[in-house]
Amino acid sequence: MAVENKIGTYNFVAEPFHVDFTEKLTMSVLGNHLLNCAGFHAAERGFGIATLNESRYTWVLSRLAVEMDDMPRAYSKFSIHTWVEKVYRLFTDRNYEITDEEGNPIGYARSVWAMISMDTRKPADLLALHGGGITNYVCDKDCPIEKAGRVKVAQQEPVARYQTKYSDIDINGHVNSIKYIEHILDLFTLDMFREKRVHRFEVAYVAESYYGDTLSFYLEQAGENEFDIEVKKNESEVVVRSKVIFN
Amino acid sequence: MAVENKIGTYNFVAEPFHVDFTEKLTMSVLGNHLLNCAGFHAAERGFGIATLNESRYTWVLSRLAVEMDDMPRAYSKFSIHTWVEKVYRLFTDRNYEITDEEGNPIGYARSVWAMISMDTRKPADLLALHGGGITNYVCDKDCPIEKAGRVKVAQQEPVARYQTKYSDIDINGHVNSIKYIEHILDLFTLDMFREKRVHRFEVAYVAESYYGDTLSFYLEQAGENEFDIEVKKNESEVVVRSKVIFN
Repeated sequence: MAVENKIGTYNFVAEPFHVDFTEKLTMSVLGNHLLNCAGFHAAERGFGIATLNESRYTWVLSRLAVEMDDMPRAYSKFSIHTWVEKVYRLFTDRNYEITDEEGNPIGYARSVWAMISMDTRKPADLLALHGGGITNYVCDKDCPIEKAGRVKVAQQEPVARYQTKYSDIDINGHVNSIKYIEHILDLFTLDMFREKRVHRFEVAYVAESYYGDTLSFYLEQAGENEFDIEVKKNESEVVVRSKVIFN
Repeated sequence: MAVENKIGTYNFVAEPFHVDFTEKLTMSVLGNHLLNCAGFHAAERGFGIATLNESRYTWVLSRLAVEMDDMPRAYSKFSIHTWVEKVYRLFTDRNYEITDEEGNPIGYARSVWAMISMDTRKPADLLALHGGGITNYVCDKDCPIEKAGRVKVAQQEPVARYQTKYSDIDINGHVNSIKYIEHILDLFTLDMFREKRVHRFEVAYVAESYYGDTLSFYLEQAGENEFDIEVKKNESEVVVRSKVIFN
C-alpha cells in the first residue's frame, strides 16, 4: 500500500471561540481535533468505533503527547495528518503531524490506544482484529518527538480541587479526556500563558472518573519550565498523570 | 436580492466529544456553532469582524435564545441556516434555523447583536455601516420561537461560586460567551439531564467579566421546568441573565 493511502489528512480552521487570549488555538481544542482525526482515519479504514461497537469493542485512549513549535492563530487554516506507527497485541501507536496553512509542520503528536471489550472493559487482541488487517496500515513516516515518559508526583497537598459536573461527562458516562486537559492547564495563571506558551503537553489516562467525583490536582515543578501533575479522584485513586513543558 | 442569497447555510457533524452523556449535542457547542455561523455569514457579505476591525469596530452579542425540539445525536449531520431579520440603529436581530440530516427543522434561535467601537466600547450606528448596506440582507424568513424575555432573580443566596480561569478567557480577554452557557448548565444535576432535556435556553450578556473574577450564580425556579439564573461578578455587578426551560 502506498504511504499516501496510509496517512489521513484533515483540514481545520482555528475558530474564534477555540483560541485563548493570546489568539492561539488552545491545547484542549487541538486535543479534541487529534482524537476526532483518529476516529475519521480508523473509520475510513474499517476499524472505527462504529464498526468495533458492532462486536462490542471500542477504542480507549491511553496516552497522548503533543509538542508544538507554534499554534494556529484565530481564523487561520491548519491540517492534521495521522497514521499508525505500530501495532502491538494490546496497544497501537498513532502519530500526528500538524501543518500550517502553507503545509509547513508546526508540531507533532504521539498517542497510544487500546481496544477494549465494552462488556468486560478488558483489553482485546489487536492482531486478531480483522485477521490482523490493521497492520496493513502501519506507516513509517517520521514523528520527531519523544514518547511520553513516566510522571511521578510525590507532593501530597493538592493545588486545586474540582467536583466534576454535567459538562465534564462524555458519551460513555466518564469524565471526557479533553476536559482533563482543560482542568490541568487551568492550574496555571494567566500570566504564565502571557509570558510563555505550552511547548509540550503529555497526558496518561490511568483510570476513569465519574460525575460528582472530586478531582484533586497535585503539582510538582520538575524544571524551570516543566511541571508534573497527578490527578486523583476522591483523594485516593490516580486517574490521570500529565507533564506540561512551557517555553 | 433573492431570499436564497440572504440565508447562509453551514453544515456540521456532531463530534463525539461535543455530545453529552445522552449522546446529544450540548447546548454550549451548538451556541459556539451559532456564533461561528454569524461570523461566516457576515464575513461573506462584507460586514464580518475582520472588515469591521479595520475601522476599529467589532460585533458584540447581546442576547441569544435557542429552542430545540431535538438535538443532533453523536456522529449525525446537521445544518445551521442564518439570516438577518431586522436592523435597528444600535442593534440587529439575527435568526437561525437548525435542520437535521434530512433537512427537517429541529430548532430555531434568535440573537441580538450590537456593533461597538473598539476604542470607546460604545455602540455605533448600524445604519451608517457601508451606507446602510446591511439592510439589503434583511430577510423575512419565519422564525417561529419567541424573543428572549426579561429575567429577574430576587434570590440573594448564590447556589454556586466559580473563580474564572485560563480556559474561560477569550481572544478579547473577557470570559467567553460560550463558557457562561457551560457554567449555567453545570448548575443542574446529571439526573436532571437524564430525565429531561433543555428545550429552551436564553442568555443576555449584560457586562463583561475577567480572569480571576468570582462568578456567583443565583437561581430561581419560575415554573415546573423553568429556571431563571443571574450571574454576578464579585457578588455585585450582574454580568449575565439566563432562563433554562426543560421538558
